Amino acid sequence: MPKVSERGTLMPASPIRRLAPLANDAKARGIKVYHLNIGQPDVPTPPAALEVLRNLDREVLEYSPSAGLQSLREKLKEYYHRYNIDVDVDDIIVTAGGSEAVLFAFMACLDPGDEIIVPEPAYANYMAFAISAGAKIVTVPSSIDEGFALPPVEKFEELITPRTKGILICNPNNPTGYLYTMKEMLQIRDLVKKYDLFLFSDEVYREFCYTGAPYISAFHLPGVEEQVVLVDSVSKRYNECGIRIGALITKHPELKQNIMKFCQARLSPPLLGQIVAEASIDTPADYMLATYNEYVERRKFLIDQLNKIPGCYTPIPMGAFYTVVKLPVDDADRFCRWCLEEFDLDGETIFMAPASGFYTTPGMGHDEVRMAYVLNKADLARAMKVLDAALKAYPGRTI
Amino acid sequence: MPKVSERGTLMPASPIRRLAPLANDAKARGIKVYHLNIGQPDVPTPPAALEVLRNLDREVLEYSPSAGLQSLREKLKEYYHRYNIDVDVDDIIVTAGGSEAVLFAFMACLDPGDEIIVPEPAYANYMAFAISAGAKIVTVPSSIDEGFALPPVEKFEELITPRTKGILICNPNNPTGYLYTMKEMLQIRDLVKKYDLFLFSDEVYREFCYTGAPYISAFHLPGVEEQVVLVDSVSKRYNECGIRIGALITKHPELKQNIMKFCQARLSPPLLGQIVAEASIDTPADYMLATYNEYVERRKFLIDQLNKIPGCYTPIPMGAFYTVVKLPVDDADRFCRWCLEEFDLDGETIFMAPASGFYTTPGMGHDEVRMAYVLNKADLARAMKVLDAALKAYPGRTI
Repeated sequence: MPKVSERGTLMPASPIRRLAPLANDAKARGIKVYHLNIGQPDVPTPPAALEVLRNLDREVLEYSPSAGLQSLREKLKEYYHRYNIDVDVDDIIVTAGGSEAVLFAFMACLDPGDEIIVPEPAYANYMAFAISAGAKIVTVPSSIDEGFALPPVEKFEELITPRTKGILICNPNNPTGYLYTMKEMLQIRDLVKKYDLFLFSDEVYREFCYTGAPYISAFHLPGVEEQVVLVDSVSKRYNECGIRIGALITKHPELKQNIMKFCQARLSPPLLGQIVAEASIDTPADYMLATYNEYVERRKFLIDQLNKIPGCYTPIPMGAFYTVVKLPVDDADRFCRWCLEEFDLDGETIFMAPASGFYTTPGMGHDEVRMAYVLNKADLARAMKVLDAALKAYPGRTI
Repeated sequence: MPKVSERGTLMPASPIRRLAPLANDAKARGIKVYHLNIGQPDVPTPPAALEVLRNLDREVLEYSPSAGLQSLREKLKEYYHRYNIDVDVDDIIVTAGGSEAVLFAFMACLDPGDEIIVPEPAYANYMAFAISAGAKIVTVPSSIDEGFALPPVEKFEELITPRTKGILICNPNNPTGYLYTMKEMLQIRDLVKKYDLFLFSDEVYREFCYTGAPYISAFHLPGVEEQVVLVDSVSKRYNECGIRIGALITKHPELKQNIMKFCQARLSPPLLGQIVAEASIDTPADYMLATYNEYVERRKFLIDQLNKIPGCYTPIPMGAFYTVVKLPVDDADRFCRWCLEEFDLDGETIFMAPASGFYTTPGMGHDEVRMAYVLNKADLARAMKVLDAALKAYPGRTI
């Protein structure tokens, strides 16, 4: 049998993926599993987005342009303008989810051996896309005790080598919920300017900022407009993760051309998703506000509950819908596994994402998990009761 | 400004893409352009496939599983069984079009520097995906004078090096319309068996075989079942290119795992496309037959017309809906450009794909174009009149 590529073999299987079959086994045993592990909100998709499908007036579901439907790109431009992101239709390339935007950004900016610096913990799939491109992710650890603030800029600077091509941030942050301050963003700006780096900025959670502090886009930073590669997605803001529509935005003329070659090779982004995304951009403010308020409540509820459980600690996430939680356990991977395999409270258990999957530094996050507050409050309440009971029963409890 | 990757820079811009703006310019001048350049059929999508969208009963457009919806994979299994392709649901991974299947196949099988052998002319985007994976496509020229038959197997064997990881075929073939015979397929089988290679087989045109000769899938070849990586797509058979649903099929256990890591990184294939694809598999035989008969007629008409034009020659394509045509011109790239920029017959012109984009050997195909017979007969008739007149007027005519 021929050998598979080393590239794929190198790719780490995320702890969530490793645990998923155990969650299915638990369900098969009749146990109810609360999914705190993934960012799949239970909030309905905007009705207008579904209506457009029901009224679809087309005879042929044909290829769309490789850069995406012109009408969608125009709507996206308007949408970004609302956030003071001043981009042209020409700067916006529609992709199959934010995922494809990250992949194409790496493919078009990085050659094998190139490096990008990323604060950790970080979204695990950045690593997979970097490996796809043969590039190396170099991490700067941030710490739960500092509330996952941006590490001192000197820590980034120490890691810069002749192979460093960019810095990647996710803001608001998945998995930490951290929201970078203007001061932090300007430090990053100075760095990418000084070393002529790309600034990859994943901003798919911009609708979810909870503290009154402003959301700062990488495109708000003066002087690095052509270095910014913005990654966006409609998945989270309109609860339509399945349609696979995202965008890559850049003002770098050569990069646009490079990216378009990858876009042309895969012919076009999904047509139906684009139609739905376009209709979603007109979603009335009351839907957006209701979703927002729902998350505000869930966040407050979850954080309060978590910090009440003895030995648990989580900083208050300022954005997105995740939080990283320190647990009084010997090993969070083992604890998450144990919850699915050996524990239940009155026939219920919880599925959490071990934080080890979000770090590359060995040992970091060994007692942390990520929780997504994408469940309604009643379910979150039950999940917290299960967690409390699980921690009391877990043999590897540390305090 | 930071530098873009060499990888993207290396990727050739296809001649079709280079000419596309000229076609738009021609239209802006009021000229009607007949598109023989791309495989976007004008045939309507099956009504049942559109109906399922109109009746969509979902509140949330959520992520689907990374390998695709279980129900779609089960339907695909049934579908393949109709073609005596004996695969399990587990062997079928749903992708964003056949394009993603090729990309993931290369990513998961090939490391930088690895080689695959491909008969040319070949679908141009294989090259782009190989460059994405850092792999090298090595071509074996087939010739229009031999009707694009498989080159002698010795020609393949001569090119095998320690870095050769696979052979890629497209059957029925894009761009030539060639359909490999059992004898040819067995020769390929012997070769991949002898050298323990992957056999990448792109079979997205299997519905379109016109000669009574059987369609032979790579999975029909005994003894190499675990070496076959089949690429499929619903785009062409149901005229739904825009939904971006394809599949990668393999029985190689380690490869499945490797591929799944790439699938998990991009989260899921498009949900709406999967729903449409699933409904399409039940398309009644009369729709499929009507589509088939339409192509049979167009093919006969186009080939007859082409071979009547003095100096033109095309072999009879046995499958797919393309044919490669030799033209009496100095340079087909220049001729195609000239048709768009400088020529019209009563306000009409034609857009053909220069064949140079399908070859990697310099100079090959310099007087050839690919035509897709995806237009109705009346339009094809007009297009042929335009071609005849253009050849008479073209200053670089050779005979």
